[in-house]
Amino acid sequence: MKGIPAVAMFCAGLALIPASAANDSHDWRDVDPNNLMLIDTRYGEVAVELAPQFAPKHVERMRALIRAHFYDGLSFYRVIDGFVAQGGIGEGIASTKDHPKEAAALKRWPALKSEFERPTGPDLKFTPLGNADLFAPEVGHVNAFAAGRDVKEGRLWMIHCPGTFAFARDNGANTATTEFYIVIGEAPRRLDRNLTAFGRVIDGLQYVQKLQRGDQNIDNGVIRDSRKRDPIIHIRLAADLPEKQRPHFEVMRTDSAAFAKEKAKRKNPAPEFYVRTPPPVLDVCGVPVPVRRVR
Amino acid sequence: MKGIPAVAMFCAGLALIPASAANDSHDWRDVDPNNLMLIDTRYGEVAVELAPQFAPKHVERMRALIRAHFYDGLSFYRVIDGFVAQGGIGEGIASTKDHPKEAAALKRWPALKSEFERPTGPDLKFTPLGNADLFAPEVGHVNAFAAGRDVKEGRLWMIHCPGTFAFARDNGANTATTEFYIVIGEAPRRLDRNLTAFGRVIDGLQYVQKLQRGDQNIDNGVIRDSRKRDPIIHIRLAADLPEKQRPHFEVMRTDSAAFAKEKAKRKNPAPEFYVRTPPPVLDVCGVPVPVRRVR
Repeated sequence: MKGIPAVAMFCAGLALIPASAANDSHDWRDVDPNNLMLIDTRYGEVAVELAPQFAPKHVERMRALIRAHFYDGLSFYRVIDGFVAQGGIGEGIASTKDHPKEAAALKRWPALKSEFERPTGPDLKFTPLGNADLFAPEVGHVNAFAAGRDVKEGRLWMIHCPGTFAFARDNGANTATTEFYIVIGEAPRRLDRNLTAFGRVIDGLQYVQKLQRGDQNIDNGVIRDSRKRDPIIHIRLAADLPEKQRPHFEVMRTDSAAFAKEKAKRKNPAPEFYVRTPPPVLDVCGVPVPVRRVR
Repeated sequence: MKGIPAVAMFCAGLALIPASAANDSHDWRDVDPNNLMLIDTRYGEVAVELAPQFAPKHVERMRALIRAHFYDGLSFYRVIDGFVAQGGIGEGIASTKDHPKEAAALKRWPALKSEFERPTGPDLKFTPLGNADLFAPEVGHVNAFAAGRDVKEGRLWMIHCPGTFAFARDNGANTATTEFYIVIGEAPRRLDRNLTAFGRVIDGLQYVQKLQRGDQNIDNGVIRDSRKRDPIIHIRLAADLPEKQRPHFEVMRTDSAAFAKEKAKRKNPAPEFYVRTPPPVLDVCGVPVPVRRVR
């Protein structure tokens, strides 16, 4: 009975690996500061990598919203434990009866055409996970994002995992405007191909988990008392910060040998510990793609 | 564009349904105060239902530990985002080099025989989920707990979902003593049948999510600075409280028609919203078993 009980030996979540001097740069890629979104909360900074390769128009909209300071001073007004943390235009609707914010905002930020999925194509490399999935004909990774693929249909989409960043919408497919959510619970895979997912939290999901929750049985999880809502202090794009203030992240290339090794290890991270060898399969949302902060 | 974007329409997590006057008592069962464990944290009270039908000796140990005030004043000393929050005897090991706490505690709380799984048997009703699973030959629910089953082997076990309560151990199967963990991330199913899971959070998982995290790359997630650890203020058994102070919960019977309806709804909670009908399958850990607080 030495050391910490062996559950200690296997870790999950977003791995923050100290950047080493090792010559492993072929296994990692930089996160482009144009795709690096920083959400300041009262608990800490949340870093999200945006994925223009999945949803270019949504990423473009997000950058414009950030630069217009649209979210600064709003709040996470709808937070449902085990599901999502949400913010955006809906806060006005939730707060007031006459929606003055919504009308003005809609003029400036008209509804977007959905980007739920895209064609498979030569521009993106899909690395299969290597086992079946309950929800998609095939799952794997594209450029460090969990993805589903249907080869017969020639379609590719981002999967809803913990940390996935997406835009909410109304009943119509093409109705998203400004409202975002971040997944904070067991992967809600039923949303795949039904909402536009276009990023993932690469650091600080723990701060999203600290957000004040609403009661899902009252107003669909909207926190009625606005004083109880945690503010979105601001959202910034790393590219807009002076070079010296930018955080710098690298993510593991999901088509690398290093990631193949990571997946193999994940199936049985500590053979000396497992009395029964776990089934040799992975949940695509249970394989965190490693991230390291370089500075 | 009225109301809150329609992501609002489907909820996940632990449903707290206001107890109604409706005559639906056949769909619900009381949580026995002898199985109701209350963990006080600085963020709020976490209620865990213990499952003696899965692991009687572990439940018995837990009750004895609670009554000996073993955990009161310890802390959640190892918390890994997306994985587990842990507390118990390991804190002494993590804090000191000479382990005085461990030696004394081990004498009083000797290692338990594992209860990773049990025989299927006439005492428990297994209600199949109704679709395949990646990790188990069959999954479903037993008495409001997610469970796996292997009919050929005649074995039954509790599944690791968000909110699952279990005992950690050392490398040997029969080495658990006092160290518990609560799952706070995507279901770590590789742990199934490898650790003794014997309860689930029925209320307050959001407070577990607020706990201060460790860095999983340093000391396996142990929070080195003990001042940064969130305390386990105390753990009590509802049965030990005066009747008037006991919280009272009901959980939905998982062999009821109400739960069958719940599962069907979960597959497509808002048909008017889904542009593409989601695949007609469920993740066994993505179906929260409804809970309601009666008083």
